[in-house]
Amino acid sequence: MRLMFLGDVVGRAGREAVVDALPRLRADLDLDFVVVNGENSAGGFGITEKIATEILDAGADVISGGNHSWDQREALVFIEREQRLLRPANYPSGTPGRGAGLFEARGGRRVLLVNVLGRVFMDALDDPFATVERELAAAPLGDVADAVIVDMHAEATSEKMAMGHFCDGRASLVVGTHSHIPTADAQLLPGGTAYQTDAGMCGDYDSVIGMQKDEPLNRFTTKISSGRFQPADGDATVCGVFVETDDATGLATRVEPIRLGGRLKQTMPGLMAAE
Amino acid sequence: MRLMFLGDVVGRAGREAVVDALPRLRADLDLDFVVVNGENSAGGFGITEKIATEILDAGADVISGGNHSWDQREALVFIEREQRLLRPANYPSGTPGRGAGLFEARGGRRVLLVNVLGRVFMDALDDPFATVERELAAAPLGDVADAVIVDMHAEATSEKMAMGHFCDGRASLVVGTHSHIPTADAQLLPGGTAYQTDAGMCGDYDSVIGMQKDEPLNRFTTKISSGRFQPADGDATVCGVFVETDDATGLATRVEPIRLGGRLKQTMPGLMAAE
Amino acid sequence: MRLMFLGDVVGRAGREAVVDALPRLRADLDLDFVVVNGENSAGGFGITEKIATEILDAGADVISGGNHSWDQREALVFIEREQRLLRPANYPSGTPGRGAGLFEARGGRRVLLVNVLGRVFMDALDDPFATVERELAAAPLGDVADAVIVDMHAEATSEKMAMGHFCDGRASLVVGTHSHIPTADAQLLPGGTAYQTDAGMCGDYDSVIGMQKDEPLNRFTTKISSGRFQPADGDATVCGVFVETDDATGLATRVEPIRLGGRLKQTMPGLMAAE
Amino acid sequence: MRLMFLGDVVGRAGREAVVDALPRLRADLDLDFVVVNGENSAGGFGITEKIATEILDAGADVISGGNHSWDQREALVFIEREQRLLRPANYPSGTPGRGAGLFEARGGRRVLLVNVLGRVFMDALDDPFATVERELAAAPLGDVADAVIVDMHAEATSEKMAMGHFCDGRASLVVGTHSHIPTADAQLLPGGTAYQTDAGMCGDYDSVIGMQKDEPLNRFTTKISSGRFQPADGDATVCGVFVETDDATGLATRVEPIRLGGRLKQTMPGLMAAE
Ligand SMILES: [Fe+2]
Ligand SMILES: [Fe+2]
Ligand SMILES: [Fe+2]
Ligand SMILES: [Fe+2]
Ligand SMILES: [Fe+2]
Ligand SMILES: [Fe+2]
Ligand SMILES: [Fe+2]
Ligand SMILES: [Fe+2]
Repeated sequence: MRLMFLGDVVGRAGREAVVDALPRLRADLDLDFVVVNGENSAGGFGITEKIATEILDAGADVISGGNHSWDQREALVFIEREQRLLRPANYPSGTPGRGAGLFEARGGRRVLLVNVLGRVFMDALDDPFATVERELAAAPLGDVADAVIVDMHAEATSEKMAMGHFCDGRASLVVGTHSHIPTADAQLLPGGTAYQTDAGMCGDYDSVIGMQKDEPLNRFTTKISSGRFQPADGDATVCGVFVETDDATGLATRVEPIRLGGRLKQTMPGLMAAE
Repeated sequence: MRLMFLGDVVGRAGREAVVDALPRLRADLDLDFVVVNGENSAGGFGITEKIATEILDAGADVISGGNHSWDQREALVFIEREQRLLRPANYPSGTPGRGAGLFEARGGRRVLLVNVLGRVFMDALDDPFATVERELAAAPLGDVADAVIVDMHAEATSEKMAMGHFCDGRASLVVGTHSHIPTADAQLLPGGTAYQTDAGMCGDYDSVIGMQKDEPLNRFTTKISSGRFQPADGDATVCGVFVETDDATGLATRVEPIRLGGRLKQTMPGLMAAE
Repeated sequence: MRLMFLGDVVGRAGREAVVDALPRLRADLDLDFVVVNGENSAGGFGITEKIATEILDAGADVISGGNHSWDQREALVFIEREQRLLRPANYPSGTPGRGAGLFEARGGRRVLLVNVLGRVFMDALDDPFATVERELAAAPLGDVADAVIVDMHAEATSEKMAMGHFCDGRASLVVGTHSHIPTADAQLLPGGTAYQTDAGMCGDYDSVIGMQKDEPLNRFTTKISSGRFQPADGDATVCGVFVETDDATGLATRVEPIRLGGRLKQTMPGLMAAE
Repeated sequence: MRLMFLGDVVGRAGREAVVDALPRLRADLDLDFVVVNGENSAGGFGITEKIATEILDAGADVISGGNHSWDQREALVFIEREQRLLRPANYPSGTPGRGAGLFEARGGRRVLLVNVLGRVFMDALDDPFATVERELAAAPLGDVADAVIVDMHAEATSEKMAMGHFCDGRASLVVGTHSHIPTADAQLLPGGTAYQTDAGMCGDYDSVIGMQKDEPLNRFTTKISSGRFQPADGDATVCGVFVETDDATGLATRVEPIRLGGRLKQTMPGLMAAE
């Protein structure tokens, strides 16, 4: 299978770039399944039903979330009817929506997506490792699931890398989100899991992690807030990861970063010979 | 000028890779000035005089540090006689050593290097922005300094990116360290400063940020320590950033990531046409 | 019933004061059940079997723990045979020992003790609120348990106070530990639960939370470690809380702080008319 | 001299209790100088000019602040004309207002008040120890200042206690604020400085640190915000510390907690024989 995962969509700039690119990427990369992290798609904070629908219509199979999943309170409601929107699985029991799901990819194949929140330097939820363990056991790769994707929404590189190894041999892809900066460490782990510490945001990189520079800079230097954060609205870079899996095992045979448009160095699997 | 910055050297694997690669990189890339972050070069924790000398002898002009600068207590002593070793500039006044220095590059040109520690999610030192402001004012780019490099040793991508913009137009390069994962966001900021959120470590990437996987995984899953962290000893990737500056202004005209050896996708300026 | 809870015992000074005071306190206050938090009883870090036995022999019915429970690794072993030693209940499943237990008090009455770790500003375990909910449901006050004590080992006053209200009407006493400073807010909450934000340590208060002052001061001012923390060895104050419950409901009818010996203002229920 | 310090005033309940009690306390305790921490006096968040005036008119000589000093943005303006309002001294240079001041007490005596923010578990400002050192040197106790009061606004008990010892022999009183819970550790440190880890809030203690219980509890259990925090409006307890100093040295000869009104156990120097 050919899977693509796009990182945190930030604001209008990120959203328009993703919606514009998705149909083309699906076609060009001959994709079987696409995940987009949408936790910052509504003005930088959360996601609305309208925006979720827009991203799904453009070609995402599922949208994952993070610590900003509920910034737009309507998400607490529409997540109950929109099965293709996930929130982190380690929220307390009783939280609206789901944190993992078995989804149908092209050709009827089944993809397990698990969305989980890290705990280092973050407001803590329940154990992400135990949570992922439970979800992997419920739909084992190569058995119930034809592919398994884990979106590890976390701050610390150590916790993300540990999650990669924790799932190695049991997931097709473990990819981090939340830092809003793509990492350059795409690799196949020894057990056959594709891994990248952070997918990077889909947003304007002439910014502070997707937000206009002035207010973040002001806060860092004066330690006093003087207004709200606003998403930067320059040309966005669509950032993510592309993975090919072995149909027999569900493990990865290839992992490539994607960076399309905007200010960052461009890279696209199969279009350029190597990153 | 042609500058190279290599990120946190981790343990023997990272050290040997760096010492082996440095002479070749200096020659192949025709480098004028080289900085290496050495805070994890001694068994993953700190730096010894022997190791500092080894790295300098291999071709580094200066070694910078971070929150692990003092893990080997001898560094508190030899930093007083080794002017080419820096520690973060925002340590309390009275701390041994220096946090910034004007160094001589090839051809007698002067490079200001400032090493500073972030405060988000870290044990806090004094204001890194005010500290950098002071150092930039003392040796302005294009006036006193022919090039200015800021090593922003920090956890949060937001604080690092803010430092990039804070220095934009006043530094040749702002590069992050500490996360031990290279980012794929090398860019020229609007004012002419080269920027990359993290240089990445020089170490074995089949690990948890350079350490053997078992104990980090054990701690994340059991929350109980069962031993010390040990540096991973597989093939290391030498990670860093390459920058070309305009001789008239000291600003950057080109920035390229470097990833050499080990498991990560390889990239080298001038050898591959584009990343 | 008459219950007493003593806070974190720190080092030899705290241990000796507690072992010395316990028999007298049991007699003078006519106590039915005594809990002691022992997470710092062994040189300030963890607990050994010998020390646990000493505290139990002196008159504690149970010893609770915290984030330092495992600093002495032998605790991982002897906690399996010493049922009267608890560790926080929200450690991952599979952790040695237990986090809650139904213990026999004087006269055959049953006391549920739950030991739980907060998550704000701490290395995070699983949800302490969900954990306490589960334990309270398993042995409801006034039904299965004649008294319920919750040791909320936490940093933030907000999280501790929230736990108090969360348990109000369902526990006899919610008392905080970990800050090593007694709070002066003993009160009966509206639903009948006795509450004090922190029991305070049993240790020498001419110190930095029980440790000799020099090294903590050195670290705060220089940000460089220059040695290990050592417990302060001056006269200790035994700090804790005394509660009387209604035999019919198990709810509290009286709560009084205890501070005995050492430098702090002395207070003892029934000996002085009011605090 | 006879000094009184009252902790964080929270919302209307705290404000009314303080304004009501101040004239009486000044008279009954024959006070020479009174400080009130006002960072939460305006609806729980910040302080307005109207409220500051009200507290000063009621009998406070100075109002100190903390991390919430700027929650009401008008404070950035009126602090420039109201010399009797301080904010933490370790804000970046250029911050409106002052962090320390030499104030006139009854009889023309001079009191140095230093307001400083801790860095452990808080958004970090500059070194509070170096800041206090500088202020103490500028107006030494027993020389320039007849009394010195340090308001250490901090989260961690360790950092507060270290500040106490850091100032021991050089200040009349080091008192903590910010935790909103009074501690029961009032003591004279060996060098003659009065110390209490936290003054406690002036507010309603049937709350979560002064806020109505529902929303804090909701957030701790669901990890999802469902509204704003509102100050609790039940009977407030006025919490603080009373200190007597030696006129010759400025050091403390007596320190007593104050708790007046509301739910907490009452204590008042000279009115009750002992705490
Ligand atoms: Fe995000
Ligand atoms: Fe996030
Ligand atoms: Fe490092
Ligand atoms: Fe570091
Ligand atoms: Fe403790
Ligand atoms: Fe603790
Ligand atoms: Fe406050
Ligand atoms: Fe505060």
